[in-house]
Amino acid sequence: MPQRTVFFISDGTGITAETFGNAILAQFETKARHVRLPFVDTVDKAHQAVRQINHTGVVDGNKPIVFTTLVNMDVLRVIQEGCQGMLLDMFGMFVHPLEQELGLKSNHRIGRFSDASKSKEYHDRIEAINFSLAHDDGQSNRDLEQSDVILVGVSRSGKTPTSLYLAMQYGLKASNYPLIPEDFERRQLPPALVPHRGKIFGLTIQPERLSEIRNERRPNSKYASLENCRMEVSEAEAMMRRTGIRWLSTTTKSIEEIATTILQEIHPERLVY
Amino acid sequence: MPQRTVFFISDGTGITAETFGNAILAQFETKARHVRLPFVDTVDKAHQAVRQINHTGVVDGNKPIVFTTLVNMDVLRVIQEGCQGMLLDMFGMFVHPLEQELGLKSNHRIGRFSDASKSKEYHDRIEAINFSLAHDDGQSNRDLEQSDVILVGVSRSGKTPTSLYLAMQYGLKASNYPLIPEDFERRQLPPALVPHRGKIFGLTIQPERLSEIRNERRPNSKYASLENCRMEVSEAEAMMRRTGIRWLSTTTKSIEEIATTILQEIHPERLVY
Repeated sequence: MPQRTVFFISDGTGITAETFGNAILAQFETKARHVRLPFVDTVDKAHQAVRQINHTGVVDGNKPIVFTTLVNMDVLRVIQEGCQGMLLDMFGMFVHPLEQELGLKSNHRIGRFSDASKSKEYHDRIEAINFSLAHDDGQSNRDLEQSDVILVGVSRSGKTPTSLYLAMQYGLKASNYPLIPEDFERRQLPPALVPHRGKIFGLTIQPERLSEIRNERRPNSKYASLENCRMEVSEAEAMMRRTGIRWLSTTTKSIEEIATTILQEIHPERLVY
Repeated sequence: MPQRTVFFISDGTGITAETFGNAILAQFETKARHVRLPFVDTVDKAHQAVRQINHTGVVDGNKPIVFTTLVNMDVLRVIQEGCQGMLLDMFGMFVHPLEQELGLKSNHRIGRFSDASKSKEYHDRIEAINFSLAHDDGQSNRDLEQSDVILVGVSRSGKTPTSLYLAMQYGLKASNYPLIPEDFERRQLPPALVPHRGKIFGLTIQPERLSEIRNERRPNSKYASLENCRMEVSEAEAMMRRTGIRWLSTTTKSIEEIATTILQEIHPERLVY
């Protein structure tokens, strides 16, 4: 079968080109080889990219697909003129109509992620990552009131990756707390959390799936046994219902879906833009 | 000044619509209000979205900009027919030409992130996040050989957020190790790392910036003093040169730029797709 190669070319990191390109390619049942060409920010590098693309096309016996997010017009022109692949110029397609509608010229600023390191938004994002790490798994009650979101749930219900995703993607300070036997006995949320009820969101999971996940970490333990998982999940769900916090099941959800749902429910104040 | 609102509509999480839309909007000096409408996966929800968009347009006195990544054609049609905003249909723009080129019909699969939770790729990504957390800050030498990347650098040079980003975005197992006075005295990398030299990447930072960052955490400490930061950075850079590992300065770089550069240099085996 002839090979097909997809290139992602950008004068910045290429993360936008790749994110969007992958979403488009997911619409097709095709296995293509992916090649990233980030930081293509000079005419020389553009010529080099063109040579690589055209050579690949010959070797594959198939036109390469080329997603670009280039704002440097000189670089883009070299690609447009020389490249024998199928060019999908993601910025060109949308920027021109937007210039018309907004009545503004685009600034051809390279890369959302360059210069970011000096911005307040970026600083807050790194702070949020550090905060979420320090408040992972109930490690600390310090500054808990600064949390934008507090996740609760039994061990391995998905709290940690979701907290980190909320911090990394949205700059939110996400704490997380495990629900443990002591909480079930007291039939109450961990006491430190009670003043922050509006920010609490619960994660639950099917006991069968939980047992699988826990068995990967601690095979044949009581911790991982289906019986124990059933008990913990049932206690945790009963507590969530009793305390009236919002919650969802993570069993078949990705961290992106969990995070998006939490944002819809919690509406964190800091996410104002 | 009249307000401008940007909508991101998707039948999935909307993360692709937002990532790409933000990259486009960054090309303009405009402050728009952002509204996410994720999980618009029925005709009813589409009608609701249309009402919200059109109402917003009237209130703003300005046409809303509407980025969509909709694969459900019935939903898209409702938006196309009813919406009085400026519609930027990100999938439609690219999917049709790709169908032609690939000779395939698109599968209209909703959302890259739905169903992801069952895939091996997703499982590996969650594993990578857990691995990177367990191997943060030299916490553990266990299974170190499983690392795809090992970051080294002085405390607060950016290792932790970069490791987590590599895990979250690319599913890479990224460990990180601080370089500490004992290493400088021995004039060698931490002994546990020596067998894995090919995977090591160094991060450094300007002493002035490092001192600023450390002062936020521990004001007026020796740890944060400019003199100490100068000494540590100079020792760390000398060691990186001496041992011949690849390294970069994070001072003005975002974690996205750092991660992209590391991938270009290290070429992790597992990132084969």
